[in-house]
Amino acid sequence: MSSIIGQNLKISLFGESHGNAIGVVIDGLNSGIRIDFEMIKDELNKRRSLDNISTSRNELDELNILSGYFNDHTTGTPLCVTIENLDIKSKDYEGNLIRPSHADYAAQLKYHGFQDYRGGGHFSGRITAALVVAGSICKQILKNKNINIVSHIKSIKNIEDDDFVILNDEAVSRLNKNYFPVNNSEVKERMIALITKAKAEGDSVGGVVETFVLGVEGGIGEPFFDSIEAVLSKLIFSIPGVKGLEFGKGFEITKFLGSEANDQFYYEKEIKTKTNNNGGVNGGITNGMPITLRVAVKPTPSISKTQKTINLNTMKEEDLNIKGRHDPCIVHRALVVIESMIAIGLVDLHFSRYGYQWG
Amino acid sequence: MSSIIGQNLKISLFGESHGNAIGVVIDGLNSGIRIDFEMIKDELNKRRSLDNISTSRNELDELNILSGYFNDHTTGTPLCVTIENLDIKSKDYEGNLIRPSHADYAAQLKYHGFQDYRGGGHFSGRITAALVVAGSICKQILKNKNINIVSHIKSIKNIEDDDFVILNDEAVSRLNKNYFPVNNSEVKERMIALITKAKAEGDSVGGVVETFVLGVEGGIGEPFFDSIEAVLSKLIFSIPGVKGLEFGKGFEITKFLGSEANDQFYYEKEIKTKTNNNGGVNGGITNGMPITLRVAVKPTPSISKTQKTINLNTMKEEDLNIKGRHDPCIVHRALVVIESMIAIGLVDLHFSRYGYQWG
Amino acid sequence: MSSIIGQNLKISLFGESHGNAIGVVIDGLNSGIRIDFEMIKDELNKRRSLDNISTSRNELDELNILSGYFNDHTTGTPLCVTIENLDIKSKDYEGNLIRPSHADYAAQLKYHGFQDYRGGGHFSGRITAALVVAGSICKQILKNKNINIVSHIKSIKNIEDDDFVILNDEAVSRLNKNYFPVNNSEVKERMIALITKAKAEGDSVGGVVETFVLGVEGGIGEPFFDSIEAVLSKLIFSIPGVKGLEFGKGFEITKFLGSEANDQFYYEKEIKTKTNNNGGVNGGITNGMPITLRVAVKPTPSISKTQKTINLNTMKEEDLNIKGRHDPCIVHRALVVIESMIAIGLVDLHFSRYGYQWG
Amino acid sequence: MSSIIGQNLKISLFGESHGNAIGVVIDGLNSGIRIDFEMIKDELNKRRSLDNISTSRNELDELNILSGYFNDHTTGTPLCVTIENLDIKSKDYEGNLIRPSHADYAAQLKYHGFQDYRGGGHFSGRITAALVVAGSICKQILKNKNINIVSHIKSIKNIEDDDFVILNDEAVSRLNKNYFPVNNSEVKERMIALITKAKAEGDSVGGVVETFVLGVEGGIGEPFFDSIEAVLSKLIFSIPGVKGLEFGKGFEITKFLGSEANDQFYYEKEIKTKTNNNGGVNGGITNGMPITLRVAVKPTPSISKTQKTINLNTMKEEDLNIKGRHDPCIVHRALVVIESMIAIGLVDLHFSRYGYQWG
Repeated sequence: MSSIIGQNLKISLFGESHGNAIGVVIDGLNSGIRIDFEMIKDELNKRRSLDNISTSRNELDELNILSGYFNDHTTGTPLCVTIENLDIKSKDYEGNLIRPSHADYAAQLKYHGFQDYRGGGHFSGRITAALVVAGSICKQILKNKNINIVSHIKSIKNIEDDDFVILNDEAVSRLNKNYFPVNNSEVKERMIALITKAKAEGDSVGGVVETFVLGVEGGIGEPFFDSIEAVLSKLIFSIPGVKGLEFGKGFEITKFLGSEANDQFYYEKEIKTKTNNNGGVNGGITNGMPITLRVAVKPTPSISKTQKTINLNTMKEEDLNIKGRHDPCIVHRALVVIESMIAIGLVDLHFSRYGYQWG
Repeated sequence: MSSIIGQNLKISLFGESHGNAIGVVIDGLNSGIRIDFEMIKDELNKRRSLDNISTSRNELDELNILSGYFNDHTTGTPLCVTIENLDIKSKDYEGNLIRPSHADYAAQLKYHGFQDYRGGGHFSGRITAALVVAGSICKQILKNKNINIVSHIKSIKNIEDDDFVILNDEAVSRLNKNYFPVNNSEVKERMIALITKAKAEGDSVGGVVETFVLGVEGGIGEPFFDSIEAVLSKLIFSIPGVKGLEFGKGFEITKFLGSEANDQFYYEKEIKTKTNNNGGVNGGITNGMPITLRVAVKPTPSISKTQKTINLNTMKEEDLNIKGRHDPCIVHRALVVIESMIAIGLVDLHFSRYGYQWG
Repeated sequence: MSSIIGQNLKISLFGESHGNAIGVVIDGLNSGIRIDFEMIKDELNKRRSLDNISTSRNELDELNILSGYFNDHTTGTPLCVTIENLDIKSKDYEGNLIRPSHADYAAQLKYHGFQDYRGGGHFSGRITAALVVAGSICKQILKNKNINIVSHIKSIKNIEDDDFVILNDEAVSRLNKNYFPVNNSEVKERMIALITKAKAEGDSVGGVVETFVLGVEGGIGEPFFDSIEAVLSKLIFSIPGVKGLEFGKGFEITKFLGSEANDQFYYEKEIKTKTNNNGGVNGGITNGMPITLRVAVKPTPSISKTQKTINLNTMKEEDLNIKGRHDPCIVHRALVVIESMIAIGLVDLHFSRYGYQWG
Repeated sequence: MSSIIGQNLKISLFGESHGNAIGVVIDGLNSGIRIDFEMIKDELNKRRSLDNISTSRNELDELNILSGYFNDHTTGTPLCVTIENLDIKSKDYEGNLIRPSHADYAAQLKYHGFQDYRGGGHFSGRITAALVVAGSICKQILKNKNINIVSHIKSIKNIEDDDFVILNDEAVSRLNKNYFPVNNSEVKERMIALITKAKAEGDSVGGVVETFVLGVEGGIGEPFFDSIEAVLSKLIFSIPGVKGLEFGKGFEITKFLGSEANDQFYYEKEIKTKTNNNGGVNGGITNGMPITLRVAVKPTPSISKTQKTINLNTMKEEDLNIKGRHDPCIVHRALVVIESMIAIGLVDLHFSRYGYQWG
């Protein structure tokens, strides 16, 4: 509580990592939308990231449409999609040794031992697959309105990618297709080498995802509690592993003078700004410039290196050797989840303004 | 839309900078709470910050209790508090020259010219006084449960404060009384000198606020959409001028290896962690360690230096000389608003768990 | 908790009968609406019902617009309207003798003695004046879309009005202007005589309000929890004194056979039904026929006749002689509140569908 | 939109009559509840009502627990339960002939032809099975607090049952076990005979369900929008086929004088009222007396008798012969759905007051 979010587009999320299925109910979609399921599968594959640098858990992520879809179109009633959990190895987990920086202990305090601890239960990144389903549908709605979301991996540990140079349709399309999108291909190789090394050492690394939303008209969002930043931040900080978020220049803008930070307006067919230090948002409302943001994703807490922890049964210190199958890095997998959350938030804000038939 | 937030403690915010009054309706408070109005006045004074480095607009901020308070206690029904706008100089503003990095243009797109542009209207920092009223009451509720919120100004532009050394009751009390709380007094002088210089030059500076929440029990917050981080981020990004937020080590944690980032558990009367890189939150739920966070506050966009902008009537470029009374820095004023939002969020999350009679 | 309702048009209600002021915050209104305040005053006067058959409490009901209105138009930000309580005689009330069928005892259990008992506090019908303000604005929005709400007093105690014969514009306008709208003027005289008699005897009577909503397009409302009936029922059962609600033929439809109850479709320029036993709603969604409903309003519980009750201090039985100024009948005063709630609900449902810029 | 209801206990409903599955996500349940699935099956069987007087559609209603249940207890995370649709005969339905008093036409207007029309789609009474699952769990939570819900069929068409005489545990238990609970067994026989006759004639009948909630403490519910009556009415009017609802004496109370209608308080170990004309609710809040209410359920609109209707393709009148398998009466099946909705509403209101760990 609460696993439900949204005002006009409502998402209801459920599932545990090793339960029967995970899923999502999406309410508020217009009727008559033809969903591109191939695109959803592509997005899910980005999250699964079947490469050498990710977990070897291999879920097919086949979608079961339980409701809300008929004759190849949305009906306008709640769309429920589930994904079964198939490739489960529950015996890898033990509940009594709380894993550092995992939800194990917090969950214990909250649920008094009744939580499904297998594979992280409801706290598992696995659940985000259902968010990607919802987000993919929202991306399709946005794309029909010429709104595109594009990201790159800004950094892995201390290796930084170059900034976007030109964000034309070609670049967007290229980055969107990539499972590990980095502007500078040489940097990318170094990033992957670093992840591979962390894996070999039983360790993990984190990084920063940078995202641009292109094509959002001005005037979207609300003052105060439904500001673009407020709505997106709630969605993005819902993603496991996210520890920081900034819009526009973010923390760096605090180093500027006001005269340097202010985005000067000019007119060229429409009103634009010369810089975009505010990330396309003023007073919580879009100004027509791209929305830009960066998200800090922490190193995966599941590492195979031996760690010290407490055994909840004995309250004694013990060595912890996490077995299971884990990711040395989830930054590239989190990227598509971040984009999904942004898509969900933007559709909801547009629905609030234009009605949920906007799609 | 929407100026309402909260699930069990609901806040309904209203007002414009130069309208008749600003105010807030607070619904969900237990009956029988004796409010300390002197403390609210102190908190409001922190926000007003009547010093040489802030705006010369001088509002008495007298509270009018319209409802929900009887015989010196809350009644349990909606508490409406208003503050009249008295010290108004509306002629200082013109609506047609859009101020860079202000909400003027975005509001124009959203409200089609019907917005109250005087003094920033509903987008003015002035409105946050009503949030401080709500936040102060929530702080009192939290304090009764031995939950304290304490902050310092982590940085102004590139001047950084020292980290907290010891956060005992005395330190909390001392920082909480301070209108410009900085750990290192020499750093504080340099910060104020910098702000004074910016003011003299018709410019402005920003900075970072760092906040600790002490005494929150473990098990508060929810997975996903009502995680501590999600709930607090929505509230904090609602504050005008906030461009970044991080919990625990935040963006810096992405530079760590997993083995360095993980907070190792140990047992000493209760389960604690040796480090607190995750800022007291795992899986969206408190683990009993202090909640720590940092907020980036941008340089005030209102500066008296001449800037270029567009005149909405002519769509031509013009020189903009913002008159009015403005702040060369709002970081210290925003600090109490940030704390207020945190207090509101924490009370709401506690109410969700324990019922709104928890206070 | 909760004094807030609505999804896209949000109403936040506050106030006590003998507090400083009552009021409402309305969030979600489009910018640029010119409000007809004379019409609101007319609606408030219907609720005040300054005649011989109502309370002698005489409130001027002057509106204070605190926010959201600028240059004679809505700004699109929260509109806060308050009405001061002026004509207060608090000494008429005592808190310890709980009045039968009033909220006194239930409020005592809920608020543990901290409630403002004066004049019924937050439970007073007085608070509904703020709802009429919100409702009047919504009526204006609906009227601009050719949606009209019209009611008559269907019965006072056992005296029944005739059914509507023709509901043309003239009839709607005539009934809407009337403070005590009854189709049959001879019936009306008997109703008023009955109320006058009840008043003379220190007693009270109740009755039924019947309402038609004309001009609502088909397709409004949602299956299940946001069905027209569900949304309107929540609003209408929020009104103090309402004990029953039925749509279309309501309880009487249970006496019909299915073949009699079913509303047969026919085509005449558009699809219509020959009967309207379902009150314009099928499956929770409008079908284009008028929405029809009836509301049972109980006899005012405040009567001057001596009653027995319990003294909360002594737990002993005592005679209760309610002084104060009370209504022998509130049916005609409740009528405009019922219409207000319907208007609020319909605007909200339209906003959900078309966006809050629909108005 | 919106298929989600509740504040602290949230229900998210989905499914179509002839889709893959129907289901519900329940969020906000405490962890550690052992659910009695046999009891849920019994409740579902009441709704299925496998007798001669109900539809011959025979669904096994096997529950699939997708999430939120582990080691025989709730985990505290969202509980998703689905029921597959197995016994489907979709060819019985045609979409173009709109059935009188069904949602067909309203749905067409709303969803523009994309709705799943088979078996009524999302508007089918079938979906209420998912509500019964949620309601059954809530009933179990209430029962643990000695709160019991009991109903009888007050009337079928013009045949009326006797009032409850004594509502002791034995009577509650007896009525709760009955699929067709009527106080007077002779009346029951006449009711069933009437339904059988209607069935034989290809027609249908409706009736009234009367429900008592026993054991609710005083002080539950809120003034205005979350009054007991407001909350329950929204849930009850969400049920397909409901056209009227009254609390306490309901519409009949309008025939009383105030002095007759008022429920006089007396003291006997606790404060009680001599009569219960207000149905246990004053000012929207429980007063400790039983909550009483009556619900009007219309005659099933699906009848096999030939009816006239419009063909949406041709806009011409045609004869309609509804085939499919239909109920000559749904009153006894609706009864358990009504109770379920009441249970959901009461748990939510208790959670709002005491936290969602109240169960």
